[in-house]
Amino acid sequence: MTPAKPQRTVFFVSDHTGITAELLGKTLLTQFPDIELHKRTLPFVDTVEKAKTALTEINDTAQKEGQRPIVFSTLVNEEVRASMTSDNALFIDLLADFIRRLEAELGLESSHALGLSHGMGDELAYQKRMDALNYTLSHDDGMDTANYDRAKVILVGVSRTGKTPTCLYLAMQYGICAANYPLTPDDFTAHALPKPLLPHRAKLYGLTIQAERLAKIRRERKPESRYASLENCQSEIRAAAALLRQAHIPVLDTTTMSVEEIAISILHGTGLIKRLKS
Amino acid sequence: MTPAKPQRTVFFVSDHTGITAELLGKTLLTQFPDIELHKRTLPFVDTVEKAKTALTEINDTAQKEGQRPIVFSTLVNEEVRASMTSDNALFIDLLADFIRRLEAELGLESSHALGLSHGMGDELAYQKRMDALNYTLSHDDGMDTANYDRAKVILVGVSRTGKTPTCLYLAMQYGICAANYPLTPDDFTAHALPKPLLPHRAKLYGLTIQAERLAKIRRERKPESRYASLENCQSEIRAAAALLRQAHIPVLDTTTMSVEEIAISILHGTGLIKRLKS
Repeated sequence: MTPAKPQRTVFFVSDHTGITAELLGKTLLTQFPDIELHKRTLPFVDTVEKAKTALTEINDTAQKEGQRPIVFSTLVNEEVRASMTSDNALFIDLLADFIRRLEAELGLESSHALGLSHGMGDELAYQKRMDALNYTLSHDDGMDTANYDRAKVILVGVSRTGKTPTCLYLAMQYGICAANYPLTPDDFTAHALPKPLLPHRAKLYGLTIQAERLAKIRRERKPESRYASLENCQSEIRAAAALLRQAHIPVLDTTTMSVEEIAISILHGTGLIKRLKS
Repeated sequence: MTPAKPQRTVFFVSDHTGITAELLGKTLLTQFPDIELHKRTLPFVDTVEKAKTALTEINDTAQKEGQRPIVFSTLVNEEVRASMTSDNALFIDLLADFIRRLEAELGLESSHALGLSHGMGDELAYQKRMDALNYTLSHDDGMDTANYDRAKVILVGVSRTGKTPTCLYLAMQYGICAANYPLTPDDFTAHALPKPLLPHRAKLYGLTIQAERLAKIRRERKPESRYASLENCQSEIRAAAALLRQAHIPVLDTTTMSVEEIAISILHGTGLIKRLKS
């Protein structure tokens, strides 16, 4: 029997959505893979009263488990923050020290405004993200190729290389109008890029993937199909690679990449990341 | 003439995607709304050589602008981190202090592994997110109501209340199978919830919005239409509210909410957030 992993309960406490607290907290905890974590998110803790309720829950957990929970917090309001202290937990305030250093550097006081990072914030920027998302949804999978002028990037590749999730991520997070177009056996027979793509070569970005991984992904959708067979995957990938190489389109291998990694690699590879204002 | 805002260049430096550095850095900077920021993201800085290139860019910026840029970094590798120092910038290491505190609390050394938070990470969890995204895409807008058993939540509301973006966000970020179903004038005439929803009442969550805002959003898609007219929006919203109230479905007003806020409110309101493991 392998010895049980040490366990610890972690709280993410925020006066708003908790997205920032969760993200940074989880990033930090990935550095400690040998601990089994029990995670609790407590969003919208924006009054002293709610802070006290949260604190009670934290203290109860400490008592029940006989060890200190870890509390990551992004509380901005001084009063709310001050009411969240206890020796029964390790409190990690993810903002306070950095805000103090920024105040010193910039010679300004911070605004202490809550929840600015995941609210509507700058309404224009938010509108841009929603517009991009609508654009991406209506330009998925080769639908509606008429408005490619508006696209910032058009992903091409065989079915199931990650085009759709990547486009959605680019639109939702970065407000980028991202279209995608599938390469199919018809295109391989023609030995040429599909016609709707020709006027937009500079925006094309190819996605590829290893055949074994593609076959596995496709089998989950259509088991026992020719579509998912290793031979067919190999042949489609080879044909797509030849087509993209011939047209001098950059290509990214997504085999071991997450959607976030694919998206950032494309932003970086196309220079779009530098052109982004926010 | 209003005086020009003070300006400052900000770098987000990461050995991986830079998502964490950007998110926390931007969260911190929202506290200083009176500064005009020029933001640059430098992802994949995972060697000493790349760190030196980044440093050169930071030093050049300092010299050109005659003031110190602010550098938010999430570099994990000690050697890479050590090569990124300069008096010409305010370096804010977003991880180091917290990792030291966690090491002390947990009695463990950190793994110094790079980019764990936005890679494929736990492959099962990643797979779950991609499966949820596929589910959500094929269960958007009332399509394919047969597999509602798999849904964790089904959003209902009139057209353009934020159902689709919220479902996509829930799927992509939290791996939650989220479906959505539009309420249309037919349903209002029938004075009853649409039939496919009846067996799944416990999963239903209503979205509503103020009529003026809805009319504005709809006008952007279909100007001059009856669909977008204020009267029609008012009447649809009223009818939907009556239907949802009668069926005891919780309802969220999304008028001033971002997709992130809507998603977290739903997770919180349904208790799904506590049930999430990661």
